[in-house]
Formats: sequence, C-alpha cells, structure tokens
Amino acid sequence: MAASSNETDLIRLITKNESQQRTGPNLILGIGDDAAIIRVPEQHDLVTCTDTLVAGVHFPEGTSAYDVGWKSLAVNLSDLAAMAATPRFAQLALTLPVANTDWLQDFMAGWSALASQYNLNLIGGDTTRGHLSITVQAMGEVMRGQALLRGRAQAGDLLVVSGELGGAALALQQLQAGKSVDADLLERLNRPQPRVSLGLALSGIASSALDLSDGLGLDLQRLLAGTELGAKIQLNQLPLATALTTVNTQERYSLALSGGDDYELLFSLPAAQQARLAGISAETNIALNVIGEVQATPGLEFLAADGAIFTPESSGYEHFKND
Amino acid sequence: MAASSNETDLIRLITKNESQQRTGPNLILGIGDDAAIIRVPEQHDLVTCTDTLVAGVHFPEGTSAYDVGWKSLAVNLSDLAAMAATPRFAQLALTLPVANTDWLQDFMAGWSALASQYNLNLIGGDTTRGHLSITVQAMGEVMRGQALLRGRAQAGDLLVVSGELGGAALALQQLQAGKSVDADLLERLNRPQPRVSLGLALSGIASSALDLSDGLGLDLQRLLAGTELGAKIQLNQLPLATALTTVNTQERYSLALSGGDDYELLFSLPAAQQARLAGISAETNIALNVIGEVQATPGLEFLAADGAIFTPESSGYEHFKND
Repeated sequence: MAASSNETDLIRLITKNESQQRTGPNLILGIGDDAAIIRVPEQHDLVTCTDTLVAGVHFPEGTSAYDVGWKSLAVNLSDLAAMAATPRFAQLALTLPVANTDWLQDFMAGWSALASQYNLNLIGGDTTRGHLSITVQAMGEVMRGQALLRGRAQAGDLLVVSGELGGAALALQQLQAGKSVDADLLERLNRPQPRVSLGLALSGIASSALDLSDGLGLDLQRLLAGTELGAKIQLNQLPLATALTTVNTQERYSLALSGGDDYELLFSLPAAQQARLAGISAETNIALNVIGEVQATPGLEFLAADGAIFTPESSGYEHFKND
Repeated sequence: MAASSNETDLIRLITKNESQQRTGPNLILGIGDDAAIIRVPEQHDLVTCTDTLVAGVHFPEGTSAYDVGWKSLAVNLSDLAAMAATPRFAQLALTLPVANTDWLQDFMAGWSALASQYNLNLIGGDTTRGHLSITVQAMGEVMRGQALLRGRAQAGDLLVVSGELGGAALALQQLQAGKSVDADLLERLNRPQPRVSLGLALSGIASSALDLSDGLGLDLQRLLAGTELGAKIQLNQLPLATALTTVNTQERYSLALSGGDDYELLFSLPAAQQARLAGISAETNIALNVIGEVQATPGLEFLAADGAIFTPESSGYEHFKND
C-alpha cells in the first residue's frame, strides 16, 4: 500500500518530520531557500563530514526504512564524535527508486529518533530518483584547537577502544547466510550509537582518535597514518561482542579486526592519562578497553595470548578491492 | 583501457588533483581525517547547500567525465550564487560503478577547472560503489545579513533574469532524439557557469533571488513562495537562447519556461534600482533582462506580445511526477 507522491510532497514530509526549530541563534536560515545559513559561535570552528550509504552495499536491501534513516545519520555523527565535535546540523541527499511516502515516513522516524538526541537540525538536502542511496553531510562545532585528530599519537601511548567489536559484522554475516539474527545483534548493525559524549570527554586527553568504520585492522593504520609509528595489539584484550563466542577463533578475530561497521572510537592515550579512563567510562556509560600500545617502529602486530602473531585475513572493508 | 583501483588509490587521485592548499587561515584541516575543520571569518555566516546528480536522470549516460565533474560542482555553486555567497569549500560524495581511474581523472579535471575559478577547496568526501551518482555539498561565506533570500519581493518589483533561457533544455531534447548537437548549445547543458559574481553584485540591491534549475515557471513560484504575491511575465522579453529560433513558438516557450537546467539567476528588483542594472551587467559581463513584474495579487501570468495568455505545458521539471 505504498503511497507515491511528487518531489514537493516529499520535501514537505521530510520538513514536517523535523520538529526542530527552523531558525535560532546559530541557524539563520533552514530548509526552503537555495541554501541554508548557519552561524558558528565565537572561538569555535565548524567540523564537517559526509558519508554515503548505498542499498545492497552499505546495508542489505531488506533493511527497514527506520534503520536506514537512523544509520545514515549515525555514521556521520560517528565521524563528528571522533573529532570531539558537538553535532549541530545535517543535510540529506536522498535518492529513491519511487516516491514512497510510507517508506520516507519511516526513514524520517529513524532519522529523527537519533537527531533529537542531539537537538540536531536538518537544514537542507535534495531528493532525486534512482537506486536507493543516501548521502548525509553533518556539521558540528568545536572550540578552536580542541578537535581530536589522527596522526598525533606518540610512542608509548595506550590504544583504547570503546564498546564492543565484531557484532555488526557477525549480524551481517548471518543475514547474508539467510539465518535469523538475534535482535540485540541486529541492532549493532542497524542502529549504531555514535560516541558523541565520549569524543567530547576525550578532547584534551586523548592524543588522537578516529571512528571504526572499516575494521580495527585498517582503521588502526589510518590512525597512525602520517607518523613513523606502529602498534602492538593484544588480541585477548579486544572487547569482542558476546555473540562472537559462537564462532571459531580465527573467524572471531577476523570479524573484530576486519568486519567493519563497529562505529566505536579508537584512540591513543598518553599513559599518564590512563587513570582518567574509568571516570570517563562511568560518566559516558561507555565501556573503554586498553587493547595495546603505540610503538616507535612502524608496522602492526596482533598478538594472541600465547604470544603468536595473528594475521587477519584482510585488512578491512574496502569498497573497491583491487581488481 | 580503463584502469581500475582500490578506494585508497581513488582518494589519492582525487586529492592529488586538487592543487589547492590543504590548510590556510580559513581551512584548518582538509582531506584525511574523520572530518574537515573550517573557520568562518568574523561577522560572516556560512552558507551551505547540497545537490545530487544521478546518471541518466540529471545527465545523459554518455556525458563525458569532464562535464559531469564540472556540472556536479556548478549546480551547487549556482545555489551559493543565488544566496550572494562567496564559494569556499566543497565535499564530494562519489558513487561509481567501477573504480575507473581514467574516468575519475577526467572527472576531477572538469571539477578543478571550475573550482580553480573560485579558489575553492575540496575538503572531504566519500567514494562508494554503485550506479553512477554524485552528491556535492558546497559551502560559502556571506557577510551577516547580506544573503539574498527568496520570499522578500514586493509588489511592483521588477523581475530580472540573467543570461539566456532554454538552451540547455533544447540540447537535452536533441541528444535524447539522437540528433547531433551544436557545441555551443551542448555547453549550455554540460558546463553551466554559476553566476557567482552576479549574486555578489546583487546583494543589498535585489529584493530576492534564486537560481533557475527546474525552469522559470516552477522557479518563479518558488521565488514568491511564502508571499501573497503574483507575477506577470512578458514572453517577448524572455532572453531566449538563439538556437530556440529553430523550434516553433509553443515549443520555444515551453523549453524556456519548463525545460530546466538553465542555472541563471532570477531576481526581483525594486524599480528604484533599475538604473543600476546596466552597470552590474557591464561589470559582471552577464546579460540582464527585465522580463516582468511582481504583482500584488497571487498567480502567474505569461503574456504573449498580442496580450494573449500563454499556458506552459507543465510547470517545470519535477523528479517525482504524481503517479
């Protein structure tokens, strides 16, 4: 019983679902003109990122509209979180095969459930017809000089990861195998919770950070990119999602290191700051685990409990494999 | 002989092609982290917009990569122009069927040819695999309170349009009919020139403005949306593209009013400012034509030279027709 409609109706539906104010001290002009106008508070900079989700690539074709709405915003807020930015605004470029208002209603419900957590304003976008694809651009604010960056780790820093790893990848694997997936596990895939409060708490404490989107193996390389440093990871310290106990050891670590879609924060922490971890974890209600250490020499080592070196099957999810 | 590659190589290629600086007084952090960081100058606001181009919908499948690169940026800069904003930054979310570096090289050449005109920095983006689609998000600066908005026209204001109308629509029509298209005409479709200098010149002079993307008929309604006003347009004042002389009168006006893809500016001008038009036109080297007048009563009238009322076949291009 899909209702179909024209572009103006779609935009009206998107706008209506956004209960947020259309103007305010920092939102000078929202949806409805050629562009939006925003004001960045004094002594702050604007942090901006963009991520695309394509149906069948970034989420299975059967994913509910609600979950697609949530996730398309979440993956962008996760990037802002990794910069220690406070989310403020987003733009939504939505490509839909048909103008299905029921689908869009559910999509916006998922979007708004997350947006409202951060009082985030949808300030613009575009609707086009084509294969289902969503590009979101998110903007946040950061006090000048307070952003968390990559490439600033020092040898001897601890490596810390939030939450659990591998759950989303296992859920996807089970879905693709046609198995039924436990609801909690599926939520790890479809409704990641961006670690905004954690990113803010780490500003001025962590030496570098990023969000885990393509798997710890690849993202750890990115965290250290531009440095001459390496890292040693203790596999038995990895906070594996509980459901991973159902798969064998090789598979377990492959999912945790290369599966992707975790949207946890990975950060380096000067050892002198280690005592603050427990307080930050309690304050944000997010588990934090030290998983290894930054080393003075390049290269990544993944060490099993017996000291054996583990080699992940692949270094992480790449959208374009060499071919 | 398409070269294929992985995502990291694609990002490297995109970054390499951007000869612009990676940091500067207003660009705190460019490509390479979870997000970019920009600084908005004192007393300025940030203007931001996003537009998606889908292959086969917004440009014919055979369009050259160079032209797709140019146009995907141009349509966004056109939105900034209509706000009287100075372009500064862009993010590029690119969905490609295959990781073809030759194609991407040409795409970036077209992009950069336009970006370099405005010293515009590419500060972030995303590359994904799927049906060819490009979502660009552009950001510019405007002095506080100096943006050109819609919905601010007054009864009695003149309606003015830049450049020529209907050329892009005619080019598309000829392409779709399998005809050969004159190079100048094809350029109207594939390489629109955003009217940035004109938008800036109109700040504080025009009462309202927008860019013509979906045809004068529909976009004129948008210019007046939120007001109780209407407009009278003199068809014989429309600056028709020269090539339109090859089609009959009904077709000619349909292309000019409903064809879309013009990317000219339409603005309302208090009659007291009319004397400034010639100077602005000379200074920007952009033709400006008064095509009608804002009226105190709602509704649009398109008047032929003999006073007959012309009804466009459709009100403009909509991506989702009622169905």
